[in-house]
Amino acid sequence: MQLTDFAKKAGEWLSGTGPESDLVISSRIRLARNLAEQPFLSRAGAQKLTAISEEARLAIQEGLRDQKLTYFNLKSLNNIDRCVMYERHLISRDHAFAKGDRGVAFNVAEDIAIMVNEEDHLRLQVLRSGLQLRETWGVMDKLDAKLEEKLQYAFDEKYGFLTVCPTNVGTGLRASVMLHLPALVMTRQIEKVFQAVAKINLAVRGLYGEGTQALGDFYQISNQTTLGRSEQETIDNISAVIPQIIDYERTVREKLLETKREVLEDKIWRAFGVLRTARIISSKETMEALSLVRMGINLGIIGQVTIKMVNELFVLSQPGHLQKMESVELEPVERDIARARFIRSFLQHIA
Amino acid sequence: MQLTDFAKKAGEWLSGTGPESDLVISSRIRLARNLAEQPFLSRAGAQKLTAISEEARLAIQEGLRDQKLTYFNLKSLNNIDRCVMYERHLISRDHAFAKGDRGVAFNVAEDIAIMVNEEDHLRLQVLRSGLQLRETWGVMDKLDAKLEEKLQYAFDEKYGFLTVCPTNVGTGLRASVMLHLPALVMTRQIEKVFQAVAKINLAVRGLYGEGTQALGDFYQISNQTTLGRSEQETIDNISAVIPQIIDYERTVREKLLETKREVLEDKIWRAFGVLRTARIISSKETMEALSLVRMGINLGIIGQVTIKMVNELFVLSQPGHLQKMESVELEPVERDIARARFIRSFLQHIA
Repeated sequence: MQLTDFAKKAGEWLSGTGPESDLVISSRIRLARNLAEQPFLSRAGAQKLTAISEEARLAIQEGLRDQKLTYFNLKSLNNIDRCVMYERHLISRDHAFAKGDRGVAFNVAEDIAIMVNEEDHLRLQVLRSGLQLRETWGVMDKLDAKLEEKLQYAFDEKYGFLTVCPTNVGTGLRASVMLHLPALVMTRQIEKVFQAVAKINLAVRGLYGEGTQALGDFYQISNQTTLGRSEQETIDNISAVIPQIIDYERTVREKLLETKREVLEDKIWRAFGVLRTARIISSKETMEALSLVRMGINLGIIGQVTIKMVNELFVLSQPGHLQKMESVELEPVERDIARARFIRSFLQHIA
Repeated sequence: MQLTDFAKKAGEWLSGTGPESDLVISSRIRLARNLAEQPFLSRAGAQKLTAISEEARLAIQEGLRDQKLTYFNLKSLNNIDRCVMYERHLISRDHAFAKGDRGVAFNVAEDIAIMVNEEDHLRLQVLRSGLQLRETWGVMDKLDAKLEEKLQYAFDEKYGFLTVCPTNVGTGLRASVMLHLPALVMTRQIEKVFQAVAKINLAVRGLYGEGTQALGDFYQISNQTTLGRSEQETIDNISAVIPQIIDYERTVREKLLETKREVLEDKIWRAFGVLRTARIISSKETMEALSLVRMGINLGIIGQVTIKMVNELFVLSQPGHLQKMESVELEPVERDIARARFIRSFLQHIA
């Protein structure tokens, strides 16, 4: 695993090959785990952090040897690499910029990632393209079992797995699905989705999870709590609601095509034009344009680019990635110039 | 001369081949003439209009036979053809939509046009690409002399040629130069040009003359009056000021390139992107985008299109031309769709 590859390709979960991947970017399962013999991180000093990360690292390298994960101590990485890992959804923002011995292990496909000493001692993540929460859970369940052979987890017979934040106590599981819902946003019907989802106790978050904006019309739907509910129940609960949201987006798209085809085509093609010609472009404008182009591909309006290319651009055009490509830290204005240049070169070979 | 050609190509004065044609679209000389034996049009009824137009038509066809002008009675033309002629600067807006026997004669190159029964009995126009007022006047002077062999003009020893509007009494000449000044507009320095030009009694008008907006950053500089000044003096007066305005625009462009190259390139390329991708585009947005692209070509930023193509697009993308191409009258929304389609097809073969 070479970090230099980061600037060239994106994780496999962005391939756009999974079920319903026109509207569903990815399915994600995350488990929170803590070591029984160690204090929670909220009470751990620097030395404890080192001891925990060493224990976790060894268990990962031995227990999950067949997964070919590479472990990185974040202390040894510069800001750009940390930022790139965050943008690739391998680590959280907090984890990227926290201090002390903290790490992350992941494979080349980037569909398995384990954060060490984030909020909990271990945060296991499995990511898959499209809508396949159950399959993703299947992979996670095996990983978890393997790792448990090496580590003794903080577990309570009554409550389940113990975690720093009470919302994770229980299964420690968060299942989430990342949806692309541009037509619902465009027609201002996305609020209805929010309301419906809130009623069944699911959360809606932006592209980079908690507290982040819904850039590019991406929304993550996930469970809020884990206590008193089995992994299967949590996954079933989300799996039941996603098809309804997908249907809603599809219906609105068809309606838009029927009633406002020219306006829609105009928006989509102009967005494509901006991406191919701009010399300065912000991250926000890029996300908005990519979102329109992505919908344009799905609707058969644009044929020159693939969903995979657009999915990758969402990640590769982020600030950390641009700086990784240029091998230097960039001011915001320089980034906007580098971003425009990168996007043009990425799209240059298409008709 | 087939009117169907109108939808395919523009007049030769738009070729972009004349001197300084990066900044000077065209040089134009117009003469106002009235027949001595006929009343001014402000006092002429329908029958008189017919008599005058017949006399003028015969004189044009005989006296200027070698110029191969075709005469059209506007009464015989539909609204679309009249509109197209107006957009091609062959006739004025008033002339396009007035009633009674009125006409226009012009050649295939469209660099000579004679309106009959516009404000005066005859309005002679010679148009040339780029900055060549003196050469344009040379052509006009010969035309005028030839026509004078066939017609007796209303002429006063003291005042000169007599015309309906007092501002044209004297030589009846209006010399004008159409300039493209996007950098002066962009940097809000165009007002200084207006002020300087007003001081020496020259007028600044928009793309389609009196009372029209300066669409596409085009400005016509012309003399205000003709009384008490020879043709040569009038032309010398304008010819002296144009190089200063050109220099000013060039200096501002260089300054922009030095200090804001990326911003300028971004604006220019995005404008190009819009023209190549939009599915709905207004006339105003088209003009603005073409103006930027035109400057981009001159500055060596865009190489895929020529000044000739852009000059032609300014005319061919006008409402009348679009309706001529579609052979049907179009609602504004339909025009915006037809315009976008036409521009894309016009630009489709470039890299």
